Amino acid sequence: MSGNTFGTLFCVTSFGESHGSAIGCVVDGCPPGLALGQADIQADLDRRKPGTSRHVTQRREPDEVEILSGVFEGLTTGAPIALLIRNQDQRSKDYSDIAELFRPGHADYTCWQKYGVRDYRGGGRASARETAVRVAAGAIARKWLAEKFGVVVRSYLAQLGEIPVPFESWDFVAGSPFFAPNLSLQPKLEAYMDALRSEGDSIGARINVVAAGVPVGWGEPVFGRLDADIAHAMMGINAVKGVEIGAGFASVGQRGSEHGDEMTREGFLSNNAGGVLGGVSSGQDILVSLAVKPASSIRREKRSINIAGEAVTVSTRGRHDPCVGIRAIPVAEAMLALVLIDHALRHRAQCGDVRTDTPKVAAQAPSADAQPPSPPKG
Amino acid sequence: MSGNTFGTLFCVTSFGESHGSAIGCVVDGCPPGLALGQADIQADLDRRKPGTSRHVTQRREPDEVEILSGVFEGLTTGAPIALLIRNQDQRSKDYSDIAELFRPGHADYTCWQKYGVRDYRGGGRASARETAVRVAAGAIARKWLAEKFGVVVRSYLAQLGEIPVPFESWDFVAGSPFFAPNLSLQPKLEAYMDALRSEGDSIGARINVVAAGVPVGWGEPVFGRLDADIAHAMMGINAVKGVEIGAGFASVGQRGSEHGDEMTREGFLSNNAGGVLGGVSSGQDILVSLAVKPASSIRREKRSINIAGEAVTVSTRGRHDPCVGIRAIPVAEAMLALVLIDHALRHRAQCGDVRTDTPKVAAQAPSADAQPPSPPKG
Amino acid sequence: MSGNTFGTLFCVTSFGESHGSAIGCVVDGCPPGLALGQADIQADLDRRKPGTSRHVTQRREPDEVEILSGVFEGLTTGAPIALLIRNQDQRSKDYSDIAELFRPGHADYTCWQKYGVRDYRGGGRASARETAVRVAAGAIARKWLAEKFGVVVRSYLAQLGEIPVPFESWDFVAGSPFFAPNLSLQPKLEAYMDALRSEGDSIGARINVVAAGVPVGWGEPVFGRLDADIAHAMMGINAVKGVEIGAGFASVGQRGSEHGDEMTREGFLSNNAGGVLGGVSSGQDILVSLAVKPASSIRREKRSINIAGEAVTVSTRGRHDPCVGIRAIPVAEAMLALVLIDHALRHRAQCGDVRTDTPKVAAQAPSADAQPPSPPKG
Amino acid sequence: MSGNTFGTLFCVTSFGESHGSAIGCVVDGCPPGLALGQADIQADLDRRKPGTSRHVTQRREPDEVEILSGVFEGLTTGAPIALLIRNQDQRSKDYSDIAELFRPGHADYTCWQKYGVRDYRGGGRASARETAVRVAAGAIARKWLAEKFGVVVRSYLAQLGEIPVPFESWDFVAGSPFFAPNLSLQPKLEAYMDALRSEGDSIGARINVVAAGVPVGWGEPVFGRLDADIAHAMMGINAVKGVEIGAGFASVGQRGSEHGDEMTREGFLSNNAGGVLGGVSSGQDILVSLAVKPASSIRREKRSINIAGEAVTVSTRGRHDPCVGIRAIPVAEAMLALVLIDHALRHRAQCGDVRTDTPKVAAQAPSADAQPPSPPKG
Repeated sequence: MSGNTFGTLFCVTSFGESHGSAIGCVVDGCPPGLALGQADIQADLDRRKPGTSRHVTQRREPDEVEILSGVFEGLTTGAPIALLIRNQDQRSKDYSDIAELFRPGHADYTCWQKYGVRDYRGGGRASARETAVRVAAGAIARKWLAEKFGVVVRSYLAQLGEIPVPFESWDFVAGSPFFAPNLSLQPKLEAYMDALRSEGDSIGARINVVAAGVPVGWGEPVFGRLDADIAHAMMGINAVKGVEIGAGFASVGQRGSEHGDEMTREGFLSNNAGGVLGGVSSGQDILVSLAVKPASSIRREKRSINIAGEAVTVSTRGRHDPCVGIRAIPVAEAMLALVLIDHALRHRAQCGDVRTDTPKVAAQAPSADAQPPSPPKG
Repeated sequence: MSGNTFGTLFCVTSFGESHGSAIGCVVDGCPPGLALGQADIQADLDRRKPGTSRHVTQRREPDEVEILSGVFEGLTTGAPIALLIRNQDQRSKDYSDIAELFRPGHADYTCWQKYGVRDYRGGGRASARETAVRVAAGAIARKWLAEKFGVVVRSYLAQLGEIPVPFESWDFVAGSPFFAPNLSLQPKLEAYMDALRSEGDSIGARINVVAAGVPVGWGEPVFGRLDADIAHAMMGINAVKGVEIGAGFASVGQRGSEHGDEMTREGFLSNNAGGVLGGVSSGQDILVSLAVKPASSIRREKRSINIAGEAVTVSTRGRHDPCVGIRAIPVAEAMLALVLIDHALRHRAQCGDVRTDTPKVAAQAPSADAQPPSPPKG
Repeated sequence: MSGNTFGTLFCVTSFGESHGSAIGCVVDGCPPGLALGQADIQADLDRRKPGTSRHVTQRREPDEVEILSGVFEGLTTGAPIALLIRNQDQRSKDYSDIAELFRPGHADYTCWQKYGVRDYRGGGRASARETAVRVAAGAIARKWLAEKFGVVVRSYLAQLGEIPVPFESWDFVAGSPFFAPNLSLQPKLEAYMDALRSEGDSIGARINVVAAGVPVGWGEPVFGRLDADIAHAMMGINAVKGVEIGAGFASVGQRGSEHGDEMTREGFLSNNAGGVLGGVSSGQDILVSLAVKPASSIRREKRSINIAGEAVTVSTRGRHDPCVGIRAIPVAEAMLALVLIDHALRHRAQCGDVRTDTPKVAAQAPSADAQPPSPPKG
Repeated sequence: MSGNTFGTLFCVTSFGESHGSAIGCVVDGCPPGLALGQADIQADLDRRKPGTSRHVTQRREPDEVEILSGVFEGLTTGAPIALLIRNQDQRSKDYSDIAELFRPGHADYTCWQKYGVRDYRGGGRASARETAVRVAAGAIARKWLAEKFGVVVRSYLAQLGEIPVPFESWDFVAGSPFFAPNLSLQPKLEAYMDALRSEGDSIGARINVVAAGVPVGWGEPVFGRLDADIAHAMMGINAVKGVEIGAGFASVGQRGSEHGDEMTREGFLSNNAGGVLGGVSSGQDILVSLAVKPASSIRREKRSINIAGEAVTVSTRGRHDPCVGIRAIPVAEAMLALVLIDHALRHRAQCGDVRTDTPKVAAQAPSADAQPPSPPKG
């Protein structure tokens, strides 16, 4: 299938450009009978939408989602669920001066050479605006996972530029403009971002994503590995340059005697695996960590070329995120939820009759305290 | 499609267990007219096969591949190419004592709970032995990429446990039992491995993979991103826990003014992107870096449970790799080649008619010297 | 992938219910650079839309399509093309009395037992209204096929109930309310339909579909057969119960000496194969014939059961087509175009480099006169 | 996915050429825990294998299948099941004289123009020999369907050339060299075939396939229709030119008042639908009917061209089936079983939680007597 559909059984087909008339998606394969309303989706969209604080892009988009199909009298019917978000605040003329040149670090040059046609307004199809529809689709996945299995998918900012953000509590995340799990650091993060914005520069971020409550058995040992599909999902988010599962790159320096998570009758004793063994979920928390690069749209001038191949300099004046990592957080949660529901369905398709007498091994720690890996020691 | 097929157009369907009668695969979608013989595939298989030095598993497998179909009079016909490798040195009785227990860090527990049936011999389907067929399939992909586009895919050991292995030259890789691009470090690496083996422990590794000569335009901007598919391919290799593209996790601490690769008429000035912009290849080297965890099969005792849920201790006495990262190197090359050929075919399917007048931007540096990212600064 | 996406590379993902707020689709994988506007799609939609004559349903739907994405400044960009058609004339209250019962011959009973949730209004997802989006998507495929290869896809009514409709000329089709290629029969067909309507009954039809100009080489010899994919596409149209390629069921009574189409330097001498040999197009016209069952929505009473399993009688009073075969004609063309473009892209993906010196064998007859098989002799 | 893989969740990837070293397949997605041995598969293969009577090809192939993987201690493990059949009686020199010419009615010309490389021996990949692997894979599907749901898939010869074969009893099928459900006609069929063989000609056939015991709810209403997938599967069998479901082409002449199958508390009153309503199984017998064209390999001379485009005459002297329809019967059963298991798995993936209180409507007639549609009345 083509490159705008995600998933094998729970499939999301995304469409729309940053400054076109609308973005949206079709969610196919959703189990019937799930209670679903516009509000269930809107709540997640609102976490990602632009303009929520001075630290993210000032584009004003209500991001109101309309459910066009697949829901009848408040329940999913098993038919495809089409979601539509009209673009409002397009200000496309901001982009007329980049119609003929390629912004460094963007998809401008590569998409032009690939397609020979280019909707240059705001990055067109390659814009992070597209990720809103992933959040919308992910909200459906997340609701089903929670109701059916008690799975909880959460995410937080683990590092902002050179500032590590130690995990204190999930309670702080929702109230933080940075999705930071740490209250005391907030002034420092705000000052850091303000400085950055005044310099006209941008910065990278590390995001940690955790899924608690995933039962043992989702995934497969070869190409259908749960961790491989998670990596695909995460690296498929705009600006992501690295993905770790469990101990991640820190496992390079680990010994086998340290890394392999021991099992006891009381539960696992560690979670270096990040909840996936041999491509299959273990019942422990799924731990994922992402590197998000600094936004390429900055005020500072950079060298580039134009469509004729001539040298130019580029400085972006539009409304942009100085740290795209922040708004990537709800997107990462959505993508993880999409991978999980797909594997939940795939698992019961093939293995719906399997029962063993072996007791389930408990996860290492109460999920509420689950804390993904610290940045690797290098 | 199910979880043992890889790729959208150039598809590899893998089969076989570690201690079954054979492993193999079917390669479907290969362009016709490619000159192909058993020797083309065997050369790559020999790089991965066990028993080549004292630093890898001593299982003796000739890994001789038989081409069962799809090649006629020395040319691929466009029909599926079936490849068969008979298992020889199975010594399955080494495994009878683990039939009823779960080795920590392995897929034993998760696959048992998933499938309720378990070929426990050597990990069965979850064994790294399966990766031989990926190498075989990858050899076909690699040959076509080289002949049609001049693409060269290479890989090397970048770190062994806590020892970084600075890149000196590709020339040293082939002669090194560790695929190390550094001659002077070899005695140190050998001593390190010998110590490890005598301790009955194992260690992780970092692998860098480079594809040079990839033309601009392969990949897509949303779910069909080239980098996402690379991440999927790499995280799908047994024991891999982290994947980076270009600057990877180092981009967390970078500013946008530093990260975004400038373009000039003479070429790109840096390659933080790792050859992929907006999910589409840029014409620069594709730079990938992997974290491989330490092997879980070690002599040292670890706690676990058995099928009845009772506490046991496990110590592995079979023949194993103290550093699975070493033999993962040809596998990583193969997987990258498989992703690239798939995208080459997908690209010409959709965009076969596209031509632009914009000159191609040259890669930053001669490919021969291309050097993937150093370990992140953290 | 899930059941509302059609195609491997040129993918159509359909959504929407008969009486929901909208129907539509996402067309993914379209080659960039195709000139495309709303009018290109609307023309085909208008051929299928309800209310065009007294012989089809009187539901009034303008079926105006909106292009939401994937087209920029009049050209396709390679991004997914989302098409939206708002439902207007829903009159859902016509359906309130069937909310609790199952109409014989409809999907009511089966979809209820499958999904446990049912949008009963007008058949919901199973309504033929959904086929409008296939026509819209097919219009894009058809335009590309015509411009790139000169492929022309056409269709006509070959039999109405017991009345065979001999082919006279393509010129008569567009002007006929029945898409009949025969002018002199029109009064007879009108009288037949009027009688049927006054009786409150419905009737089946045979449709012939022809694609001229398809080059040799599209399709594959095993599961990716062009004829198999055509059969899938056609049997996937609501109410279709039979599909023939070329001589179809008449080939049961043929000898090999008669059936096998001879080739000469001047061209093929017959077209029993219907343009497909070994699953691959031969360069001859693709000839397809369909059986469309009589509509199940009739005024006449039939026995059935309700949701509680109790006996009921059902008589449909809504606005319906007495012969759904008529409006299926543009749908059949669209589906054939969708299969063809998908195989065109798949072919150039795998075989884009193939050239032979063997001259192409010409099609048997000028395409303008091409005439699909007569009904089988039985 | 590419064209040699069949199915969405229960996937069969086929390989091998008629005169290569082997044919085989990989069956991926099989539920674990199914008791499976070589004999389970061999039984079905033996029904299709050549040389079983004087009425089919005299090629001597034991068609012994080897299970290479996916089964451990007599149970499927959930891992891919690779099946291998070595070719024995190849006599490829029979084919050297057709290396440079194209047999009429065969894939020779089309595959040559498509691939530019051609394994001409016995049709290579396009040979009906490939269908042995479908039978092998189908045997697995059939066993699971029978054990889990009590589904029984059977097939018989319904017409041989111009001779209709009235259904008398399933009991006669196994003993008939023609799979004819009619004992008294056997002498007539034998005489007919003998005459045909002495004339060096071939003939078409109609095959009816029936699946009894399929529960209500498999399939989907739009592109994932069960009947569409059946049509794909059937038209994908070599030499098939037509497919009917239920009343098939006879429904062209039916009125809605006749066609729509009424439901009562005692069961359905007819089965014009052939067990599928709105793309979803109804619980009635699935009724499929196929037209198989006469074999193109005949002794009689036909005109054709060679690779240089020159006129030639072709007469086939190899060992061939005068009626390929006969040996297609086990293949048709296998393909139907493959479609059914795939939909069984897809259904429980999406709808595994659905329960309704509505009682199931019984099938019209005891399955043992189920009789697919007679040839259409035209």
